[in-house]
Amino acid sequence: MARILVLGAGVMGTAITMPMTDNGHRVHLVGTHLDGDIIEEIHESRFHPRLRSRVAETVTPYTYNRLGEAMQGVDLVVLGVNSLGIDWAAEILGECLLLHTPVMLLTKGLAGDGRRLRILPEVLREGLPSEYRNQIQLSAIGGPSIASELATRRHTCVVLAGSNRTLMEDVAGLLRTPYYHIWPSTDLIGVEVCVALKNLYALAVGLVQGWLEKEGEADNGAAMHNAASAIFTQALWETGYLVEYLGGQRSSVYALPGAGDLYVTCQSGRNSRMGRFLGLGMNYRQAKAKYMPEDTVEGAELALAIGPTIEALIDRGELDSAATPLLRTVIDIVCHEEPPKIPWGAFFAGV
Amino acid sequence: MARILVLGAGVMGTAITMPMTDNGHRVHLVGTHLDGDIIEEIHESRFHPRLRSRVAETVTPYTYNRLGEAMQGVDLVVLGVNSLGIDWAAEILGECLLLHTPVMLLTKGLAGDGRRLRILPEVLREGLPSEYRNQIQLSAIGGPSIASELATRRHTCVVLAGSNRTLMEDVAGLLRTPYYHIWPSTDLIGVEVCVALKNLYALAVGLVQGWLEKEGEADNGAAMHNAASAIFTQALWETGYLVEYLGGQRSSVYALPGAGDLYVTCQSGRNSRMGRFLGLGMNYRQAKAKYMPEDTVEGAELALAIGPTIEALIDRGELDSAATPLLRTVIDIVCHEEPPKIPWGAFFAGV
Repeated sequence: MARILVLGAGVMGTAITMPMTDNGHRVHLVGTHLDGDIIEEIHESRFHPRLRSRVAETVTPYTYNRLGEAMQGVDLVVLGVNSLGIDWAAEILGECLLLHTPVMLLTKGLAGDGRRLRILPEVLREGLPSEYRNQIQLSAIGGPSIASELATRRHTCVVLAGSNRTLMEDVAGLLRTPYYHIWPSTDLIGVEVCVALKNLYALAVGLVQGWLEKEGEADNGAAMHNAASAIFTQALWETGYLVEYLGGQRSSVYALPGAGDLYVTCQSGRNSRMGRFLGLGMNYRQAKAKYMPEDTVEGAELALAIGPTIEALIDRGELDSAATPLLRTVIDIVCHEEPPKIPWGAFFAGV
Repeated sequence: MARILVLGAGVMGTAITMPMTDNGHRVHLVGTHLDGDIIEEIHESRFHPRLRSRVAETVTPYTYNRLGEAMQGVDLVVLGVNSLGIDWAAEILGECLLLHTPVMLLTKGLAGDGRRLRILPEVLREGLPSEYRNQIQLSAIGGPSIASELATRRHTCVVLAGSNRTLMEDVAGLLRTPYYHIWPSTDLIGVEVCVALKNLYALAVGLVQGWLEKEGEADNGAAMHNAASAIFTQALWETGYLVEYLGGQRSSVYALPGAGDLYVTCQSGRNSRMGRFLGLGMNYRQAKAKYMPEDTVEGAELALAIGPTIEALIDRGELDSAATPLLRTVIDIVCHEEPPKIPWGAFFAGV
């Protein structure tokens, strides 16, 4: 039996407590300042209102002001905040984390500071007190994993990535169940780049649904699956380039973190929904304000977070413009309110 | 203006006449013995009943007994028969094809003779008279291309593969339009293996739809997208292994012929439909007889065509059993009427 602390009581942070508690571990689930209502509801009814699932008795809910208490004796810390909460998480964890306690990220995203792109484990590391920087063991989960499905024990396959393979095997052993299948990987960079970009690219695939609704089925019943599939494929193609650019391995792109996670993200969810609104002809600001004011659309947040950096890297000739036409299209749509025009002829440069 | 002969007046053979005629080429569309009604209907009304689309005036319909006449002066022959018609096509083409006329295959499949697997361009080559074997220029189209969408000029991206890059550029130039985007490739083997296997693997992804309908949505609304995505990813993984085993390039797997064509095939179509019936609990023979007696389910036909050869290759230690658990599952289902049980733990061997 291990003790596991999960920081962030959103749907994914809570869903992953299911395999943990099924394996007999005790979980301390610590809500962020956005999760107050959720923590209260779990206290009262053991029900997570957004995940619409019961939470096991062996999950103890905490508010973040009790993080120090919740951290006592834990063997693993899991970070389930959203990408906007990573700096806050580094600050609050820095006050009470023990040096030898490994941290596993569920949070997906990339950061850009105008000069370079960084994966979130690096942002977390740099946000922690200096004594942690070279010592803390960071890992991340990546793969097609819709939280509501994991929470109801439906088959889910993921990769656990980190530099220390023995530790990855140990952590995977804590989480693995007959429905939660985990493969260890040492390509932390590749996995993180894949799982971040999939949100942005799923938004591009989602455009097609909007176009289809606007134009309608053809007289012969034809939809627009060919277009969606080509955009999906270009997304994988560009992800491969960006993973290598950032020092990761292309093999992660063609596995669960890349192809698998992009596939699942295109089937449903907020990024696809936003893509549909944009395909219907709204601009990003309108669509966000009118239809999704309370939602974090991770793909759009990523475009906003890395767009200026991507443009600067291209301007400086450090990033290949020809290898990233779809990325630039999404940045143009989200950051510059441009209409969604797919540059088909620029796809697959170098095939 | 070129003259192009298309042998096979099914949905794909007819859909591809759209970019041809839009480019000003004249097309001779020759029906097989299965296409008699279609050819008659096009003669009478210029309407293709299954594609539910008008056929351009510059497409001249022929029955196959007039193939010799239709072959006069053509610059390109396109093969649009289904995988079961490849031997017949070789025989009939052998009687009237000119040596210098290139042949482009739309037909997808693999052949197995118990000892080895062959791509269909090789089957065609070996079925032609001996003087053709070392001379005829064969190429193939691969990528996400639902016929009804191409026929209504909806954006479609494909690869044209063949050993002669200059010829590929020339043929691509005949077909390319503002909605039909074509990239040349020299990996004929890789493209052919990808586009054949996608039908078989789409059947496996389709199982999940049947399971979902049987079990229903979970109380929290969860579907089974994680499972479908993991099977999709394993399919790409195994395709990569099989492409390399047969002498192709893995890069085709992560491009339009592999990921793109598998994606589109999982969104709709007969292979997914058969997968759904199997997921609902029927065995292959029941489902075929009861619900799809008139349909060619290419994925199941492929399992029947290559299943015994795959098993023999594994028995002889020539093919890695650990690298192909999903392939073997589909073969077990289709060839041996076994229930569809996914070997999750055997996925991603060697990650």
